[in-house]
Amino acid sequence: MLTDSQTRTMPAAPCTSLPPTDAKTRVRQFMQQLQDQITQRLADLDGVGNFQEDCWERSEGGGGRSRILREGAIFEQAGVGFSEIWGSHLPPSILAQRPEAAGHNFYATGTSMVLHPRNPYVPTVHLNYRYFEAGPVWWFGGGADLTPYYPFAEDAVHFHQTFKQACDAHHSEYYPVFKRWCDEYFYLKHRGETRGIGGLFFDYQDGQGQLYRGHDANGTAAVYSNQLGSLSPRSWEELFAFVQDCGNAFLKAYVPIAERRHGMEYGDRQRNFQLYRRGRYVEFNLVYDRGTIFGLQTNGRTESILMSLPPLVRWEYGYQPEPNSPEAELYTTFLKPQDWVHWTPSNPEC
Amino acid sequence: MLTDSQTRTMPAAPCTSLPPTDAKTRVRQFMQQLQDQITQRLADLDGVGNFQEDCWERSEGGGGRSRILREGAIFEQAGVGFSEIWGSHLPPSILAQRPEAAGHNFYATGTSMVLHPRNPYVPTVHLNYRYFEAGPVWWFGGGADLTPYYPFAEDAVHFHQTFKQACDAHHSEYYPVFKRWCDEYFYLKHRGETRGIGGLFFDYQDGQGQLYRGHDANGTAAVYSNQLGSLSPRSWEELFAFVQDCGNAFLKAYVPIAERRHGMEYGDRQRNFQLYRRGRYVEFNLVYDRGTIFGLQTNGRTESILMSLPPLVRWEYGYQPEPNSPEAELYTTFLKPQDWVHWTPSNPEC
Repeated sequence: MLTDSQTRTMPAAPCTSLPPTDAKTRVRQFMQQLQDQITQRLADLDGVGNFQEDCWERSEGGGGRSRILREGAIFEQAGVGFSEIWGSHLPPSILAQRPEAAGHNFYATGTSMVLHPRNPYVPTVHLNYRYFEAGPVWWFGGGADLTPYYPFAEDAVHFHQTFKQACDAHHSEYYPVFKRWCDEYFYLKHRGETRGIGGLFFDYQDGQGQLYRGHDANGTAAVYSNQLGSLSPRSWEELFAFVQDCGNAFLKAYVPIAERRHGMEYGDRQRNFQLYRRGRYVEFNLVYDRGTIFGLQTNGRTESILMSLPPLVRWEYGYQPEPNSPEAELYTTFLKPQDWVHWTPSNPEC
Repeated sequence: MLTDSQTRTMPAAPCTSLPPTDAKTRVRQFMQQLQDQITQRLADLDGVGNFQEDCWERSEGGGGRSRILREGAIFEQAGVGFSEIWGSHLPPSILAQRPEAAGHNFYATGTSMVLHPRNPYVPTVHLNYRYFEAGPVWWFGGGADLTPYYPFAEDAVHFHQTFKQACDAHHSEYYPVFKRWCDEYFYLKHRGETRGIGGLFFDYQDGQGQLYRGHDANGTAAVYSNQLGSLSPRSWEELFAFVQDCGNAFLKAYVPIAERRHGMEYGDRQRNFQLYRRGRYVEFNLVYDRGTIFGLQTNGRTESILMSLPPLVRWEYGYQPEPNSPEAELYTTFLKPQDWVHWTPSNPEC
């Protein structure tokens, strides 16, 4: 599955570090704690809404707990799910990337979240971290990305700086590679737009030298692959520590943004634009999202998988933002990849 | 691409009838006339809304005219599109079904429509007819299907009877096969529901003996294939006449339903249920629909392709209809395949 140029830059046949014997238990406990930590803080922040929990089982093996807060003061809907599933074979979409897993049982656990705030000045945000084991292979994946409706550069800078800090404590290559991968992954090809201002995204992190395994929508290696070098092999423990730090950075990255925006006054214009832009979230999740497709392909719990969809959405044929409006600025600047950690605003009030 | 059982029931290597030299012109004119006929009648019926037309060109070849009526008295949104496109190669999803077309230029023309009425008692409806030529092969595809929000058996019976009549004038096998294919195609696997009460659906009709070429979501031949026999070869002229009769039957199938339902009083309950059920339309079109995927894969005009999406949509985690309500009856009876032309209601008022 490697291109020639990738093969040339990789160390010869690195040994994959074995997971510890209690790997599944430890990752599961972390994923559950992450769900607990996030839902407790969000409920405090909201002050009105409470999370309702549904525990569910999957007939082929495993289950999960879905938590949803609706009609809160800040959150129109907040869905935070934990799941742990196992089965006899991974779906073809994953086996194409991990052929070594063919013919083996698999185990997967993860936490996934999408927040849909009511106030259009508060951005929507997504988080997902996941861990897989299948025969001889294991890997971590995940990330977090922010989708603002209105353009506030300081929010984008804060979000990226927080995750850069978490990454830099582990490896200086992580932030630049996973930031670009995020811009590439959360991209609506049919719209020529990113989903939002990005954040981090990574997948298939098994500790071997190859950091980046991105592919475009047609499954061919994407544009960045030739620009990325390789790293020394990293242990399971190092990667798990990295994933934990990323997960634990989420509240620090998002809560200050929600706090400073949720009291801002807005009207029908802003609400209508928010509902319209939420349509892009639906388009991304149903057409492109790996987690959604994995869930539907593995006969997952539909209500939990689609808990990411917004509670109310608008489509409008031929919509164009008014020139020189905040809505236009979202398109021209915030729906394109930007180097947010080095952002120097021409207008510091923007 | 044929299974053994299909090969056994087919006549040996039938000759495909050649299209006439003016085939493209004639089909294009029919598709345009169908768009004209439908938009004129719907605008008359609505009485308030008018269709706005956008003509567009496709850089790789071809173009179309998209017509949309918004905020009408009956139609909250009605989109009716015509397109005619050509290019150097069909996308992989079609070549998998038509390997003979590989390495050839293609031509495709069609008319596509989705109506989203405002009153929840008026069903949403979809129509699409299309024609392809690519090297040695040509085929017709299309159909029409009805998606009610509230259960009226007489509407379902009328819709199916109208199309059965159009089919029966051409071949007695058409209605039973294309009705079942429609139930199979417009199926949301992840919900275990049909999109609505069905109608007709067919694809890859090239006049050869094989009537049915359905496949399930994983690309394997679907359940009905072994039950369907084969027909004598039919000429291009016969198939074109059949497609025209189906297209021309649409207004007779739908307008009487809209006329008898659009004056019915409704409240928030019905409106909320309609907005919720519209979410299924979005899920189907973005996750499964062949026309949407073809459009996005061939770099089509996104606004025209997604003109099918409803203007306002709701998702609600864990929604369950109240037992013994009209909403529950929709699920138990109308979102499952039924033999509507032989329907004998236990309650004729339903």
